[in-house]
Amino acid sequence: MTDFTELETPALVVDLETMDHNLDRAADYAKSHAIALRPHIKTHKSPLLAREQLERGASGLTCATPYEAEVMSEVCDDLLVMYPPLGPRAQRLAQLAKRVRLTVALDSDVAANEMWRAAVGVGSRVRVLVEIDAGMHRVGVQSTADAVALGRRVESLPNLEFAGIAFYPGHVRGPVSEHAAQIAALGMLVADTRAAFERAGLPMETVSAGSTPTLWQTHQIDGVTEMRPGTYIFNDRTTAEIGACALDECALSVLATVVSTAVPGQAVIDAGAKALGREPMRGGTGDGFGCLASDPSVVVKSMSEEHGILDLSRSSWRPRLGERVRVLPNHVCIVVHLADVVYGLRDEAVVTSWPVAARGRGQPVLAGPLERSLPRATADSSLRSE
Amino acid sequence: MTDFTELETPALVVDLETMDHNLDRAADYAKSHAIALRPHIKTHKSPLLAREQLERGASGLTCATPYEAEVMSEVCDDLLVMYPPLGPRAQRLAQLAKRVRLTVALDSDVAANEMWRAAVGVGSRVRVLVEIDAGMHRVGVQSTADAVALGRRVESLPNLEFAGIAFYPGHVRGPVSEHAAQIAALGMLVADTRAAFERAGLPMETVSAGSTPTLWQTHQIDGVTEMRPGTYIFNDRTTAEIGACALDECALSVLATVVSTAVPGQAVIDAGAKALGREPMRGGTGDGFGCLASDPSVVVKSMSEEHGILDLSRSSWRPRLGERVRVLPNHVCIVVHLADVVYGLRDEAVVTSWPVAARGRGQPVLAGPLERSLPRATADSSLRSE
Repeated sequence: MTDFTELETPALVVDLETMDHNLDRAADYAKSHAIALRPHIKTHKSPLLAREQLERGASGLTCATPYEAEVMSEVCDDLLVMYPPLGPRAQRLAQLAKRVRLTVALDSDVAANEMWRAAVGVGSRVRVLVEIDAGMHRVGVQSTADAVALGRRVESLPNLEFAGIAFYPGHVRGPVSEHAAQIAALGMLVADTRAAFERAGLPMETVSAGSTPTLWQTHQIDGVTEMRPGTYIFNDRTTAEIGACALDECALSVLATVVSTAVPGQAVIDAGAKALGREPMRGGTGDGFGCLASDPSVVVKSMSEEHGILDLSRSSWRPRLGERVRVLPNHVCIVVHLADVVYGLRDEAVVTSWPVAARGRGQPVLAGPLERSLPRATADSSLRSE
Repeated sequence: MTDFTELETPALVVDLETMDHNLDRAADYAKSHAIALRPHIKTHKSPLLAREQLERGASGLTCATPYEAEVMSEVCDDLLVMYPPLGPRAQRLAQLAKRVRLTVALDSDVAANEMWRAAVGVGSRVRVLVEIDAGMHRVGVQSTADAVALGRRVESLPNLEFAGIAFYPGHVRGPVSEHAAQIAALGMLVADTRAAFERAGLPMETVSAGSTPTLWQTHQIDGVTEMRPGTYIFNDRTTAEIGACALDECALSVLATVVSTAVPGQAVIDAGAKALGREPMRGGTGDGFGCLASDPSVVVKSMSEEHGILDLSRSSWRPRLGERVRVLPNHVCIVVHLADVVYGLRDEAVVTSWPVAARGRGQPVLAGPLERSLPRATADSSLRSE
């Protein structure tokens, strides 16, 4: 097998032992609290890794896009798409529902109607979770009354089945000790909503919650039946900063090469915004766009598309040109989305790799006028002005 | 042909008439000032669009990565790689130099040595530009004396040929009226460097400069022989904000769908950080991560991976669910890098599309232990905990 230092950089490398540990830990937590674990695959976008999650007892998978769901249908036939099915999305999902048990989350009559019409059109059935706004204020119905009204609407539509509620507690960030009041409030929200649905004759089979930051507090939210963490498979600098993992539980890093030390006081690596993304810390206090695994005091302080600038001011480490470093990204989901392939390491050797199979959107390339054949430009061509 | 409103979103759409105008305008400028135009293809990553640039008189192409250069070698055999060739990059570029006239920019003896050894190893020749720091403080040698020393080193190495200098004026941003002193300073820097190289017996064939923000001032920088703008083919919100194009000269937008209006005072579109990137305005004063083409007062104020939150507070426009909008991104190069396919429009009809052929890095996927076959999970499988 290859020594990982021989990879062309920037490259995503995953320590498989750490990943296995992360997968086992969450699976054990879910099992011990009798909460279904339905991992969000947006983080890894790989059916091979989804299979690792299913093998450890995952009840199904969560996806954001129709393409993610199509790719994951290769390894799982119980999929939740946590995204309003509007426009062509509804058609694509209705088709998929002919092959798998499909659940979608939505927050509007319009989305319910589009999903219904698409499902009727192809003769499939779709389970529906009503998404409620639990405090993040991104999507979700705004009151229990609205939730019940939408649930009734869903239940009245042929080919749709009301299955419960979903929420994403993306507003709960920061150290665990600051979460207690918010976690308790979520439990009260679930209890109120359950009571309202029961009064309406609509029992909730599923109460679906997030997330990696709140993963280890999920059992404190009374009434939650399933959870949808994504990041936990790899973790990242933010997850460590807010205390939902340790820094050495970050399984994925961006392998990069020091390509310039010409400007005093800094070093330039070949992981910029096109490899690392430009994601700030979320809920943590750290600065920069990532830090070195070997020395977290060295952060990527600024970036161009293909350049990352390391701030050396808080470290005595001085890199040499050509040296390899491993960068822990602030937000791993974006980093994986930027890459085509991920390399798996055991004991610093590359033992496998896998494609980021569900990146992109599965959109077709159409032929057209630009696809004509043009003469190849040559060094002595009249096209050249030099 | 397809009405563009039927595309699945988020999708990148390019108005071909505007793109043609942008390409013609820059080609005419370069020709009228007798400056070679060597477009940076990082913006579009498409050999089809590179061909449009070459047809209009481009002297060659500029790339950042070995993979970009390999893909572009399909349509052009005069390539500049504006990135230090360290590690496996040097090997890959040396191979490519057997097929094309290859120039690389570098700023260190170490990079020169690696390029030299790789070129000798495969028997190719590589032209070298010494990259100087013209004020951006990212990469580049720090003094004229260091530039000459590196030029001498390059000239002494077999298989390498000293060809001149390159710089990227990434520090020159903001409205044109504030640039005059910086532009004049760049001219003086070029003159000083040229004189020093001539005294050393190393005449500079090429003085290579950036960029789209400074495109229309390039002729004011005395001594520049070629320019490497990238963004100009599409332009973006930042380019318009700093006055290097008009807003209606932005050719590329992200077509998105309004997927939720449940939370009062905002609307959610399906273009988030995984479609738009999280790029701030660069040198301009605007906020948010993009604005609507139809109403620039509506900005994407925040994002999740697949959600963009539109701020409606400065507009009377109120979207309906399912409505399509076109978002002008802050930084178009990142947006293209996030996509696999781009759709070309004439008069609002999709007349063609093309793959983003040089996105990714061309890294191999290796087989390994994860590639084993596992049983497919099923709804009644013992794998399920639900």
